[in-house]
Amino acid sequence: MFRPIIEAMTPYVPGEQPRPGQHLIKLNTNENPYPPSPAVGKELAQIASGDLLRLYPQPRADAFISSAARTYRMPRRSILAGNGSDELLAMLFRATLGPGDRVAYAFPTYSLYDTLAAIQEATTIRVPFGRDFVLPVAKLAAARARVTIVCNPNSPSGTFTPVTTLASLTRMVQPRLLVIDEAYVDFAASTALQLVKSHPNLVVLRTLSKSFSLAGMRLGLAFASEPVIENLLKVKDSYNLSRVAVAAGVAALSDIRWMRRNVARVIRTRELAEKHLRKLGFEVPRSSANFVLARLAGRDLGRLASALRRKGVLVRHFDAPMLRDAIRISIGTPSEMSVLFKHLSVLVPRLSDSNGRLPFVNESYR
Amino acid sequence: MFRPIIEAMTPYVPGEQPRPGQHLIKLNTNENPYPPSPAVGKELAQIASGDLLRLYPQPRADAFISSAARTYRMPRRSILAGNGSDELLAMLFRATLGPGDRVAYAFPTYSLYDTLAAIQEATTIRVPFGRDFVLPVAKLAAARARVTIVCNPNSPSGTFTPVTTLASLTRMVQPRLLVIDEAYVDFAASTALQLVKSHPNLVVLRTLSKSFSLAGMRLGLAFASEPVIENLLKVKDSYNLSRVAVAAGVAALSDIRWMRRNVARVIRTRELAEKHLRKLGFEVPRSSANFVLARLAGRDLGRLASALRRKGVLVRHFDAPMLRDAIRISIGTPSEMSVLFKHLSVLVPRLSDSNGRLPFVNESYR
Repeated sequence: MFRPIIEAMTPYVPGEQPRPGQHLIKLNTNENPYPPSPAVGKELAQIASGDLLRLYPQPRADAFISSAARTYRMPRRSILAGNGSDELLAMLFRATLGPGDRVAYAFPTYSLYDTLAAIQEATTIRVPFGRDFVLPVAKLAAARARVTIVCNPNSPSGTFTPVTTLASLTRMVQPRLLVIDEAYVDFAASTALQLVKSHPNLVVLRTLSKSFSLAGMRLGLAFASEPVIENLLKVKDSYNLSRVAVAAGVAALSDIRWMRRNVARVIRTRELAEKHLRKLGFEVPRSSANFVLARLAGRDLGRLASALRRKGVLVRHFDAPMLRDAIRISIGTPSEMSVLFKHLSVLVPRLSDSNGRLPFVNESYR
Repeated sequence: MFRPIIEAMTPYVPGEQPRPGQHLIKLNTNENPYPPSPAVGKELAQIASGDLLRLYPQPRADAFISSAARTYRMPRRSILAGNGSDELLAMLFRATLGPGDRVAYAFPTYSLYDTLAAIQEATTIRVPFGRDFVLPVAKLAAARARVTIVCNPNSPSGTFTPVTTLASLTRMVQPRLLVIDEAYVDFAASTALQLVKSHPNLVVLRTLSKSFSLAGMRLGLAFASEPVIENLLKVKDSYNLSRVAVAAGVAALSDIRWMRRNVARVIRTRELAEKHLRKLGFEVPRSSANFVLARLAGRDLGRLASALRRKGVLVRHFDAPMLRDAIRISIGTPSEMSVLFKHLSVLVPRLSDSNGRLPFVNESYR
């Protein structure tokens, strides 16, 4: 009944989302610990009182696109809105990659790229990062893939590739596409966005899930040259953003200061978290995102993640090459991070005593 | 940069959505003329006051699925929620059809199927309906397509195929998939939904856009056997429904009586509209949907649609074989329909006077 590739594939597994009423400290899916702008709530209350929901939304989410054009100083025709940037990634894969076409990215990175490539039966060229997470630019360019993707800041490492490097890579791969997934870029020092104006083969993706605290609303943006946007539109669902999503997006972009204030708070907490983690003996690449990767070389930290889970703290462990000895910790509020560190300070010294065996597999930690 | 098929293709064009502030009588995209249940507004106001939007939604829209399971008496594992039923259709095509695989449907029908087939490079087998719009069951079965789709009630004809016929077709095509797109079924007399329990190769699609007055919210449901749902999940975007959509869906399903009352009003108006249109000389297949197809055999009614547009009334004309001599009219409120008929009573006698040439191409109607 299904395509053989679909029957054979394992689905992408997103991080755990607690059920309503489950009280967990959620440091596993890089949500913002602070609420979205009150402007969003006002807009929702407005919609709740009207009957506009009976009508289809604008197919291209016009009002949201106009807001994004003003906010990011980009022409409207260079912008496409998505039901989260995940939908935009899916559209990009669908529009560009057929069976056997090549897509390249450095690894480890956002594992959804693997899933989307599998659906298209595309060939993935996964160039390994070194331990320092410096982007392997020359190897990526040498792959001559139809599409190259750079997640920047990268997840799960949090590391950042300078914009000048990305500009070079864009030129090196042209006329083939470079996609820069900037989901976390508001937590970093600079963005490649303005390169879109001068590079017709560049796509920059943004999301309102992280810095704008709207993961629950599903809002993403793609910026690219007009011909790229026109082709992406062909594989877009007709009405991919609801009227509520459009209104929430407009409201969020109208209050950039709110977003920036929350970002500043997250960055302060992140810097403290990096220091604490290093004191505990973790190797922590310098993060430019709203999370940090904490590594204990050679140890399988899946069990540490499970131990934290039992204490009511969710962090993310990836059972994947180069990541088994690490956990990714989203930056929460200072008090949430205190709870995390309270547990880590108990769990981790036992770890370093263990000469390779992890003591917290002991029943007392179950 | 793009797949050749994408570069070559023309996108699906949805019906016109007026810009904010444009006052048009909208009878072109089959929206409900009555507002959604007040329960939806209450739910939105509730979300507006909280900070839950910072958190990702449940990947499978759990609360909405539970509501749908209760409402439709189906097991939860047989239900998948979509960002509109368009997204569910896209998932179905993506999961089942590769280059050259065959998909069959009677024609004319919802033209999105053509677009989705093109994206998959699937081969379409379009079996023509006769003028009576009776489903060509034997020919559809003989096509032996990997997927067969029946839009029931069909758009744009509004005609209905009895459930017993669909049950036969399901058995005739097995083990291959039959998809019944029931977007409009609440306006009809019966549904194929319960067949899903006994037919593992059947998928039934629903939407909250029409009968529940929630086109602006993007909510669809797929019902099928567990293995089918499991495979569709693999090509689903991780978080395809926002927290707001889930809450609105739960609220709408909690107030079925509201939906039924609006459906009853639409059906009364539809019956009157059919009579009036026939009096004006239109051929009108009996509709089981919230729209009617009005035909003047052999005339190109694109110009009638344009003339109505200039009067502030939007109806839908499809520039496609078998449809050029028809317009599809969504059922509005009685007062909206009065305006429509006021204009038609002026425009249509001129039409029948015209001996084949349409007089309202005259400047006076521009």
